[in-house]
Amino acid sequence: MRTWLTERFGIEVPVVGAPMAGVGAGRLAAAVSAAGALGMIGVPSAATAEWIAGQAAIAGGDGRPYGIGLMAWTLDGDPARLDAVLDARPSLVSVSFGPYAGHVERLRRAGITVVTQAGTTDEARAAERAGVDAVVARGAEAGGHGRDDVATLPLLQSVLDEVRIPVLAAGGVATARGLAAVLAAGAAGAWVGTAFMGCVETTLPDAATGRVLAAGETDTAYGRVFDVVQRLAWPPEYGGRALRNAFFDRWAGREEELASDEEARAELEAARRSGDYDTAYVYAGQAVGMVRRRRTAAEVVAGFAEAERLLRRFAT
Amino acid sequence: MRTWLTERFGIEVPVVGAPMAGVGAGRLAAAVSAAGALGMIGVPSAATAEWIAGQAAIAGGDGRPYGIGLMAWTLDGDPARLDAVLDARPSLVSVSFGPYAGHVERLRRAGITVVTQAGTTDEARAAERAGVDAVVARGAEAGGHGRDDVATLPLLQSVLDEVRIPVLAAGGVATARGLAAVLAAGAAGAWVGTAFMGCVETTLPDAATGRVLAAGETDTAYGRVFDVVQRLAWPPEYGGRALRNAFFDRWAGREEELASDEEARAELEAARRSGDYDTAYVYAGQAVGMVRRRRTAAEVVAGFAEAERLLRRFAT
Repeated sequence: MRTWLTERFGIEVPVVGAPMAGVGAGRLAAAVSAAGALGMIGVPSAATAEWIAGQAAIAGGDGRPYGIGLMAWTLDGDPARLDAVLDARPSLVSVSFGPYAGHVERLRRAGITVVTQAGTTDEARAAERAGVDAVVARGAEAGGHGRDDVATLPLLQSVLDEVRIPVLAAGGVATARGLAAVLAAGAAGAWVGTAFMGCVETTLPDAATGRVLAAGETDTAYGRVFDVVQRLAWPPEYGGRALRNAFFDRWAGREEELASDEEARAELEAARRSGDYDTAYVYAGQAVGMVRRRRTAAEVVAGFAEAERLLRRFAT
Repeated sequence: MRTWLTERFGIEVPVVGAPMAGVGAGRLAAAVSAAGALGMIGVPSAATAEWIAGQAAIAGGDGRPYGIGLMAWTLDGDPARLDAVLDARPSLVSVSFGPYAGHVERLRRAGITVVTQAGTTDEARAAERAGVDAVVARGAEAGGHGRDDVATLPLLQSVLDEVRIPVLAAGGVATARGLAAVLAAGAAGAWVGTAFMGCVETTLPDAATGRVLAAGETDTAYGRVFDVVQRLAWPPEYGGRALRNAFFDRWAGREEELASDEEARAELEAARRSGDYDTAYVYAGQAVGMVRRRRTAAEVVAGFAEAERLLRRFAT
């Protein structure tokens, strides 16, 4: 399974552990990289430069490559966070969702491989024009934030035919079968978040992990409820896919009202603190139905490595 | 590319031309089968037994295998149509969406291979219990009717791990890359509708084909508007994905009102007759963005055959 991704970073399994803000920090990134894939730190919108430096030290402590994922809309007017990323010298930076293009050249000049996530073929073309090293074709079934427009399989076929830079596939890849699929289509690797959500190395509270392990493939919902209630400045085209819960159902379709409801805001904050996931959010993709037990990141990566056997079947 | 599908029907390319009621009848089925894949007739809800017999004669005229696709909810209380299917002796029957299980044994006893479409892993398990020969894992990005719950890539991984019968992948497969992907995952083949919608052998009016060729990957929408306005008895969990148009946008979210609006019903019928696709529907999946010019079914099938080259890359 040698691809642009494995060659570029000297890794064995063509999988990137997707940056998951609030779920995966330095420990998960280090564990994914130690297992032979490429781990990433998800930088939360409220993270400080010091947090980034500290997590980067954990992720890169053993000298293996790792990456950092940034939300572009959080960078404006706060240069310290991008400076902290540059100082940490990760192998890979993903900067997505909002005005990312202005950061690409500075990161690349520092010797960092830069990618961005695209939810449509037009966004992938724009990414190529912006000079990124590779583009992540992110389908609507993916967990966390992004577009809800096109699913991974059709998006991937289209993007691979339309851009000349390497393409990674995000959204719905949870087992070796999914990795084999996107490699056969022509992707350089898979960008995997949800499949790592059951891992012992995440920062998720146990109660949230319990929700992940119990959830089925039809238990996610996409929308802006959790961004609106927190007054987060996500560009509106990038909603989030999370486990559907009572709070989401109560407010979906009433986002305008929610935006000024201080009681709901306090309710969510209290629920986050107390670990009440009928109200608080757990972002996850449709692949969550395949995440059924606590595992180590090493076990998850070893499972993905089975893709090689699936692909070799076609040798004869 | 030898799979259960190619061996069962003696075909060369592991692709089924999905049954598309109102789009593909005997001529398209015959053309897909003549090209080395397996073509199917889509039986519209209003089709008569005579229509079925006539189209089957066209599809099977050259002695090649072909299939017939039925909507289970249209069969109750109308045995003549199922009798017509049995008399025609197609190689394959798909019976989906509604109470299909009671028809499986009768079809199989007639020597017909029987499949059904499943939009969740639970539906796939139920299909296996119902005794079908294979199950079609149909993702939410697919065109026409079905569930909007799980996209093809995650659904396929899950279903392949949960059932022991062969699995075909439906939804979003439009090029050789997509076929290679689902085969690598372990599917026995792809179930392809939208990619054949630009074909000269469809029954689509030119104005509808023009809409297909012009549409992009984000131009579809899912819902029940077009079923409700026509008073069609589709089970409500099976909505349809169609090209988004002005009529859909006007009525989406107001289906209850639409169900008794006689003016809207007359408006849709008039638009269907006049070919006004701002009002009338054209069912299509998200793969429609990859359908850009009129082609023959033979050209489309030849394109899919390139999947073999994509898969052979992993031989070394």
